[in-house]
Amino acid sequence: MSDIKKVVLAYSGGLDTSVIAKWLQTEYNCEVVTFTADLGQGEEVEPARAKAEALGIKEIYIDDLREEFARDFVFPMFRANTIYEGEYLLGTSIARPLISKRLIEIANETGADAIAHGATGKGNDQVRFELGAYALKPGVKVIAPWREWDLNSREKLMAYCDEHNIQVEKKKGKKSPYSMDANLLHISYEGDILEDPWNEPESDMWLWSVSPEEAPNDPTYLTISFKNGDPVAIDGVEKSPATIMEELNKTAGANGIGRVDIVENRYVGMKARGCYETPAGTVLLKAHRAIESITLDREAAHLKDSLMPKYAELIYNGYWWSPERKMLQAAIDETQSVVNGDVKLKLYKGNVIVVGRKSDDSLFDEAIATFEDDAGAYDQKDAEGFIKLNALRLRTAAKKGRDLL
Amino acid sequence: MSDIKKVVLAYSGGLDTSVIAKWLQTEYNCEVVTFTADLGQGEEVEPARAKAEALGIKEIYIDDLREEFARDFVFPMFRANTIYEGEYLLGTSIARPLISKRLIEIANETGADAIAHGATGKGNDQVRFELGAYALKPGVKVIAPWREWDLNSREKLMAYCDEHNIQVEKKKGKKSPYSMDANLLHISYEGDILEDPWNEPESDMWLWSVSPEEAPNDPTYLTISFKNGDPVAIDGVEKSPATIMEELNKTAGANGIGRVDIVENRYVGMKARGCYETPAGTVLLKAHRAIESITLDREAAHLKDSLMPKYAELIYNGYWWSPERKMLQAAIDETQSVVNGDVKLKLYKGNVIVVGRKSDDSLFDEAIATFEDDAGAYDQKDAEGFIKLNALRLRTAAKKGRDLL
Amino acid sequence: MSDIKKVVLAYSGGLDTSVIAKWLQTEYNCEVVTFTADLGQGEEVEPARAKAEALGIKEIYIDDLREEFARDFVFPMFRANTIYEGEYLLGTSIARPLISKRLIEIANETGADAIAHGATGKGNDQVRFELGAYALKPGVKVIAPWREWDLNSREKLMAYCDEHNIQVEKKKGKKSPYSMDANLLHISYEGDILEDPWNEPESDMWLWSVSPEEAPNDPTYLTISFKNGDPVAIDGVEKSPATIMEELNKTAGANGIGRVDIVENRYVGMKARGCYETPAGTVLLKAHRAIESITLDREAAHLKDSLMPKYAELIYNGYWWSPERKMLQAAIDETQSVVNGDVKLKLYKGNVIVVGRKSDDSLFDEAIATFEDDAGAYDQKDAEGFIKLNALRLRTAAKKGRDLL
Amino acid sequence: MSDIKKVVLAYSGGLDTSVIAKWLQTEYNCEVVTFTADLGQGEEVEPARAKAEALGIKEIYIDDLREEFARDFVFPMFRANTIYEGEYLLGTSIARPLISKRLIEIANETGADAIAHGATGKGNDQVRFELGAYALKPGVKVIAPWREWDLNSREKLMAYCDEHNIQVEKKKGKKSPYSMDANLLHISYEGDILEDPWNEPESDMWLWSVSPEEAPNDPTYLTISFKNGDPVAIDGVEKSPATIMEELNKTAGANGIGRVDIVENRYVGMKARGCYETPAGTVLLKAHRAIESITLDREAAHLKDSLMPKYAELIYNGYWWSPERKMLQAAIDETQSVVNGDVKLKLYKGNVIVVGRKSDDSLFDEAIATFEDDAGAYDQKDAEGFIKLNALRLRTAAKKGRDLL
Repeated sequence: MSDIKKVVLAYSGGLDTSVIAKWLQTEYNCEVVTFTADLGQGEEVEPARAKAEALGIKEIYIDDLREEFARDFVFPMFRANTIYEGEYLLGTSIARPLISKRLIEIANETGADAIAHGATGKGNDQVRFELGAYALKPGVKVIAPWREWDLNSREKLMAYCDEHNIQVEKKKGKKSPYSMDANLLHISYEGDILEDPWNEPESDMWLWSVSPEEAPNDPTYLTISFKNGDPVAIDGVEKSPATIMEELNKTAGANGIGRVDIVENRYVGMKARGCYETPAGTVLLKAHRAIESITLDREAAHLKDSLMPKYAELIYNGYWWSPERKMLQAAIDETQSVVNGDVKLKLYKGNVIVVGRKSDDSLFDEAIATFEDDAGAYDQKDAEGFIKLNALRLRTAAKKGRDLL
Repeated sequence: MSDIKKVVLAYSGGLDTSVIAKWLQTEYNCEVVTFTADLGQGEEVEPARAKAEALGIKEIYIDDLREEFARDFVFPMFRANTIYEGEYLLGTSIARPLISKRLIEIANETGADAIAHGATGKGNDQVRFELGAYALKPGVKVIAPWREWDLNSREKLMAYCDEHNIQVEKKKGKKSPYSMDANLLHISYEGDILEDPWNEPESDMWLWSVSPEEAPNDPTYLTISFKNGDPVAIDGVEKSPATIMEELNKTAGANGIGRVDIVENRYVGMKARGCYETPAGTVLLKAHRAIESITLDREAAHLKDSLMPKYAELIYNGYWWSPERKMLQAAIDETQSVVNGDVKLKLYKGNVIVVGRKSDDSLFDEAIATFEDDAGAYDQKDAEGFIKLNALRLRTAAKKGRDLL
Repeated sequence: MSDIKKVVLAYSGGLDTSVIAKWLQTEYNCEVVTFTADLGQGEEVEPARAKAEALGIKEIYIDDLREEFARDFVFPMFRANTIYEGEYLLGTSIARPLISKRLIEIANETGADAIAHGATGKGNDQVRFELGAYALKPGVKVIAPWREWDLNSREKLMAYCDEHNIQVEKKKGKKSPYSMDANLLHISYEGDILEDPWNEPESDMWLWSVSPEEAPNDPTYLTISFKNGDPVAIDGVEKSPATIMEELNKTAGANGIGRVDIVENRYVGMKARGCYETPAGTVLLKAHRAIESITLDREAAHLKDSLMPKYAELIYNGYWWSPERKMLQAAIDETQSVVNGDVKLKLYKGNVIVVGRKSDDSLFDEAIATFEDDAGAYDQKDAEGFIKLNALRLRTAAKKGRDLL
Repeated sequence: MSDIKKVVLAYSGGLDTSVIAKWLQTEYNCEVVTFTADLGQGEEVEPARAKAEALGIKEIYIDDLREEFARDFVFPMFRANTIYEGEYLLGTSIARPLISKRLIEIANETGADAIAHGATGKGNDQVRFELGAYALKPGVKVIAPWREWDLNSREKLMAYCDEHNIQVEKKKGKKSPYSMDANLLHISYEGDILEDPWNEPESDMWLWSVSPEEAPNDPTYLTISFKNGDPVAIDGVEKSPATIMEELNKTAGANGIGRVDIVENRYVGMKARGCYETPAGTVLLKAHRAIESITLDREAAHLKDSLMPKYAELIYNGYWWSPERKMLQAAIDETQSVVNGDVKLKLYKGNVIVVGRKSDDSLFDEAIATFEDDAGAYDQKDAEGFIKLNALRLRTAAKKGRDLL
């Protein structure tokens, strides 16, 4: 069928990717290397080893990528206050380039000539995995079984397992009807009743957060410290990037924070309903804007805001590993060396409320801003000239009879 | 002092603008026309008549502008999902161009050659009033007493009242220490303890909303219907623009919704702390994005998002009456004829949660989006070519050794 | 092979599309409708009728689309001062949406269920044709023979002609080695020695213009009048859109104007060398900017400039028939009602030199701009306040020790 | 009059700034430090020393800033293909921040508390000088005599010279009626008959270039080499930045290249006519685009194009020393490490014609781009999927009856 000799598979240890591993061995008659990553999805990754071994896999990679994920992907993205289509914090999107990078690194280490993944042909993830792979190793072959095979139903998959002696784990309790993805930044839900945008999600769908109704009646206050635009401490205690994400996920989730329910536009062309829980991200986005509000120059802030939708689109569409994303990142990062200081937050039943911000790099100048006597810090008469010259072009046009009503 | 014969004054009936009226009569020896507008600030405007009469004003304009304000200013702005610096819904900014417009219309009707306002020389409002005035009547003179006179303290103002027999109304209860502004869209607070961004606002500052803690324990569900991008009905009952604002302010405010506490960048160059209550606006922004999410084309939506920060900046800076705002409005409005349908919302203790959206103009195609069999609506094999060609430039660069890590 | 019954073919009458017509009849066993358009390419279109008849075609459309092309496609595009990648005036790109539109109109008239075109699988034109077709008739089938068949060499095409009795016209003289496309806006050259970007084009390649060296030693002066942003008269004589294009092509081409030689980035992912002659377009772009320079507000002009690259990209990529192009067009057109007046130009050996512009809508105010005494039209003291407030944020930052060097 | 003790004056040695020096000594009773820079304006700067001494100046700075100007200001700006309002290469604008920087450096060295300049209150230069000064030394005082004094005519200036024994140099020949500015990048002309935009400039106004008519009948070919986006060699010979500018000014000027005649929008609000000669800049802009055309990724190039108008506006308006300019510069510079290679140009009677480009970093892939057999480098069938998915949203909309015509 092809000249592929060895393929690195993004392997979760679950049913689908186990079938894929076997299918690759069978259909492509090639060696399979499995790669399983801990990105903070909240499930053990080590069990994937035994499953891979049971499939006869010889080269098994199991990596804890949580710190790298938070530090080199999530935090840089949050420097831009990134949000897709006004609502989505890009929890799935931002994890994909790291997986692509590791797939390619492992392909290079093991001499593999192909990679494979378990994303379907309708979603954004296939695009993200493959754009990343091609950008980092242009000659790589990509195998996307869901676009190739005819195992397009649960029944066929199960039959395939039977036929090929793939052990199917019986999960306890009812299987979730949703398609889900999780990492340090979020957990996502798609499919089932969500396919009608008029349906409200069922309350037992959400796994990471309580509902605002169930959240505590007393607020939680906390202070996040930023350095160079990144969060570095909670309540004065320095923590690693992944630890910050994990702690905030717990605290914010317990306060009913971070649920999003949207219809989004996929890069492959259709609209799709997605529900997300992003507790830590929701807090960090608010906090980062707050610390920027006192430390960042106005025009730098506005320029960042105007570039953000493009930057978000690039990440959503899978162009993390691209020259244009690097361009924007350079612009964003250029501004962050002064984004230092503390933001005090109140978390309460779904609300993230900024109640204070301070910084040694603050540009907030009480002497100028005050309604009281400013002792000459600002000359109000300057405003007249400022307005007059800004109005000049408008007056000239109005004199020519231009109607702006 | 000047050749000004008649001036139209934006007159609230309060102490400051009463002093200004007298001061204009005295210093400029000119006739004063007062203009008082009901923009939904929640206070009676009719009492301003007697106060103006007491000052000897002969031409008194008192206008109910609530419908015009909501219909021609607030709603067009919300079509763009407008938000300044990620947080501020522009409640004050959007009212200023309407006031400018009426000041100029009245100047034209009464043959006045000048306008006057009570905004200070440090704020944005002077800019907004004056840019609007100059754009609509290029030869108009503008008098901004706060930039001219030396009555720069409460004491001097009171002394001036005494001296000129201006009646000072004793408000019941403690006078608010905050500088405030209100209209259908919001009420704002500045000054006093807010001048330190590390201070949390005191709970009794907020006037329009209860705190999330005090909000009811049961959520309120409601459905907003949109037509051509504007809200037209609540729970199936058609209402006028101002009525929609008023009702939503009540309902949302009662659910603890719409408080914002930020440090913002003023056009005149300094950072300033502002607190705002925007109950209806917070609900409408969320609802408008939700109805757009199913009805708007992806690229139109993204283009809108990329233009929005500029559009928000224009409104904030006072350029409503400008060719560039009209350009952007034309682009935005071009997209809204399909933004029709219903959004179901859940309001609960500060949260605005979208729980459903539907539209006859929906572009959400369940047949394509489904995780189930789509009966050929979407050919997954198309994705391979899509990805391959989108990756081509990246692969070419990688082959040349370009490093994107 | 398919259930296609009738296909509308974009038919030039040349060898390639004649083979396609036969191939469609044979391979798809379907009826073929031919559509041949006069877009100003400079060749007779009527001869296509006999050729189509010889192929047994019963429904033959031959349309003179020159006026529609100039008026509804070229001129709207020029309102934006559109230029792709700093150099390319989009001569081919802007013709494609009109052809798509007519293909679909004819498909609707004739009850055809498919369209076909002769563009290759490597170029932009396939994308432009097909995006347009799908946008205007979503259920249409598109046949792109060059992506399907194996007639991928001159020899195979000729053999096919022999086999199927397709008459091959012997052109007089040497056949051009270049792939060419022409319409009222330009003629293009690709392929052959141009495939090495270090090669200078041979002088006999260019067909529409003389070289600057060969152009007359005396300049040509002419005046173009604009109305609502579109050219309407030359030297005071009103002319139709297509006539303006034709005349300017002649005059400018005779003065060595309009040659472009670039490497451009195709939408399908590769870089390609293209040479173009765009005599009229080069003149009109310069003239349009000149008339805008005195009539357009500064901020509207700058906003147009910032939107132009996106607008150009949309047209280049084939998204003329898209909501986002319509959005941008609405913004652009909003500005053009004041773009009226005359531009005097000097054409000389490749140069287009603006030597004068005037307009009843001119915003150029000599009274203000003058270096001489302006009699108070502009108060130089206003500049101080203007600068001071614009500098305020920079000073505040500098006081905090921010280093901008 | 003030508490200013020492002021650094941007001093040309000409009449105006000599009067200013004296006026500062007299009116402000302060010590004056003169600063005269060689920016390549083509006049000796050393004579300014004697004139300053004659005025009693004790601290005299005369700097050759040509290399710094070309290397750190002109070249970084050209990396962005910067052009203001489609025509102006920013020759004056880009020199101002360097002068501001030196004024402030000298103020710091000499303990001066103020700077002064000879720009008028109507132009952009005052803004550029002062924004730069405030950004680099926030407490500096700025004296702009033209905005303060009443010496607002030639006669009054001459009378002042008489009164204060300022020696007025009699220039040979007729004094130019134009207001001029020159440096390595350009020479500019404003005023006099140019104040009517319908007037063609007189042929004897232009000083740096011959007219196309007078240029040689034989073209000049030359090759410019780029490294990291900057020109480094001409015809294979490495040269310093200033030398490159000087040589190209001569060669291009001799070929009639670089004249621009426009109406531009000043930051202070009015339209103004300006004529410019920018020989080297015109060549470099063309050459830089050409080398980018083969080395730069498409999306990086398009992003640069979309950011350029903003970047140009910042420089024009005087915001070189600003966080937002640094942001954009970071983005631009990020892309330039691959912009290496050679561009071959033909200069002929006003035309700059690119006739070849080559680079070891070229992304032009002949194997893919070729019209000939590409041996599988590009799979034309990929285009179908590419188009289908890009069309999906358009088809979905069309199915809902959306009309894009």
